[in-house]
Amino acid sequence: MTDPTDAPSLPKHLHLIEVGPRDGFQMESTFIPTDLKVATLDRLSASGVREIEATSFVHPKVIPQMADADEVMARIERNPAVRYLALVPNRRGAERALKAGIDGLRLVVCATETYNQRNVGLSVDESLRDFEQIVRLGEREDVEVSAVMAAAFGCPFEGKIDDSVVLELAQRFVDAGTHRVGLGDSAGLANPLQIRRLLRKYRDRLGDFPLWLHLHDTRGFGIANTIAALEEGVTRFDTSLGGLGGCPVMKGASGNVSTEDLLYLCREMEIETGVDLDAIREASRALQDFLGRPLASRVLQAGTRSELVARNQ
Amino acid sequence: MTDPTDAPSLPKHLHLIEVGPRDGFQMESTFIPTDLKVATLDRLSASGVREIEATSFVHPKVIPQMADADEVMARIERNPAVRYLALVPNRRGAERALKAGIDGLRLVVCATETYNQRNVGLSVDESLRDFEQIVRLGEREDVEVSAVMAAAFGCPFEGKIDDSVVLELAQRFVDAGTHRVGLGDSAGLANPLQIRRLLRKYRDRLGDFPLWLHLHDTRGFGIANTIAALEEGVTRFDTSLGGLGGCPVMKGASGNVSTEDLLYLCREMEIETGVDLDAIREASRALQDFLGRPLASRVLQAGTRSELVARNQ
Repeated sequence: MTDPTDAPSLPKHLHLIEVGPRDGFQMESTFIPTDLKVATLDRLSASGVREIEATSFVHPKVIPQMADADEVMARIERNPAVRYLALVPNRRGAERALKAGIDGLRLVVCATETYNQRNVGLSVDESLRDFEQIVRLGEREDVEVSAVMAAAFGCPFEGKIDDSVVLELAQRFVDAGTHRVGLGDSAGLANPLQIRRLLRKYRDRLGDFPLWLHLHDTRGFGIANTIAALEEGVTRFDTSLGGLGGCPVMKGASGNVSTEDLLYLCREMEIETGVDLDAIREASRALQDFLGRPLASRVLQAGTRSELVARNQ
Repeated sequence: MTDPTDAPSLPKHLHLIEVGPRDGFQMESTFIPTDLKVATLDRLSASGVREIEATSFVHPKVIPQMADADEVMARIERNPAVRYLALVPNRRGAERALKAGIDGLRLVVCATETYNQRNVGLSVDESLRDFEQIVRLGEREDVEVSAVMAAAFGCPFEGKIDDSVVLELAQRFVDAGTHRVGLGDSAGLANPLQIRRLLRKYRDRLGDFPLWLHLHDTRGFGIANTIAALEEGVTRFDTSLGGLGGCPVMKGASGNVSTEDLLYLCREMEIETGVDLDAIREASRALQDFLGRPLASRVLQAGTRSELVARNQ
């Protein structure tokens, strides 16, 4: 018989980084009006979320959805308690982002050469040189710069990736001056066992160097992977309202872990997030109404336990 | 730093019980032609699955979808390696099932009085008396009889349920002569922490008495709950091809854990199932074509890692 004290321990607190306005919106082929983007960000910043990936400063020809990034940032009601992050593809994007008042910059580097070429048209070395430049730019403006490794758990072009490749690149992120390392499962290929194994190797190599995870739910394992990471002590996660998201260069990749689903799970497991589920759902519903299709979040569709009971009275 | 040997251990083998032809089909408002039901069962029995909940012997007025249960059983190609199970609501259903050559009977008893009344119009005591009669019937025919407890992790009518209520009822199942106890999360309200807690209490109370889980993915936690149960040593799970399923008396309840998703996860984590993913997907695709909507299974929609890589070549 198992001793209940054997249960893997869960952290008391989870820090959620809302990435829907970037990773979610960029996947939508219909242009989301600037008004709705601004309203979404304002709803999010009032929800208790403390970090939001608000937009991406990328060339409008590459991602037309993000053409209004500067205007969005100018029009939102800034909540001083919230850090507004932006994804930047290069130095020029970083300069635009800083001018727009972004609090933190993120650069994506893919774990494999093929994917990095397809994603940003650069070699991994070239991306890292860009990254170093952006770090220096950030230092001058006192803005944190982070790197997220796309396809850290499997590549849509090269398949399986050796853990050693991931750890080596994470080390290079650290050497290049990142403030945090992000590991992304852009293709939704991770499984809980792999998450545990890689996180343990990460700690062997990089100790307590700040880490966050960016997990997708493409094959339905997003929440299970999140739990495995929580049990390994990771407390920072990207999630997307409504479960919006995916990857523009990857067919069949869909959906970040949904903010609502993770929030509800945390509530049920007594992990504190400080985020109001209803406020997130209100923001998701407005987007759902505009997009005209049910969003992927299961809790958005099915509701909470108490709502289920109330409906059945 | 965490010691890799701390990782909760996973079993080497998982025993999958396919319930799509019963729990999945009964939720469909369009009548699935008998031919397609038979073809699905034949595809399933050739996939390596060793137990299939093939149908339900319930009055056709209650569930018209199951009106052809006898014909389905008469027309399938019986695979002697497969145990064909049926859900029966009462003694009369059990008699029909035995006449149709069913290898194992299942009765559902709900964890709460309200739900049991709504589900079968009986009190829990009355259901248990029925169950005892069916057990005696099964003994005469040398057929195993199991009871599954619906809403063991939360009730759509009464909300939270004390673990003690669940354990007490499980004990009554054992006393009534069940061969195995099933715990069902019909409303999709379970979370991994609760799964661990309840399973540990189950073992305290009932030791190694055979147990299986029937989990739904209503709020996106189906796979995470399955992993928690696997880590607690449970190896028998109901799943449904395509993620079909739900509960006819419960609004907002949808989808068993998908057979494909769990199979793919097992393959990735090197847990043996003996079941061929492609055969299951072939069966799901035929149903998907007939039903005219994408089924819930994520692996059915997104494919495996190697398929993703092949698509991107």
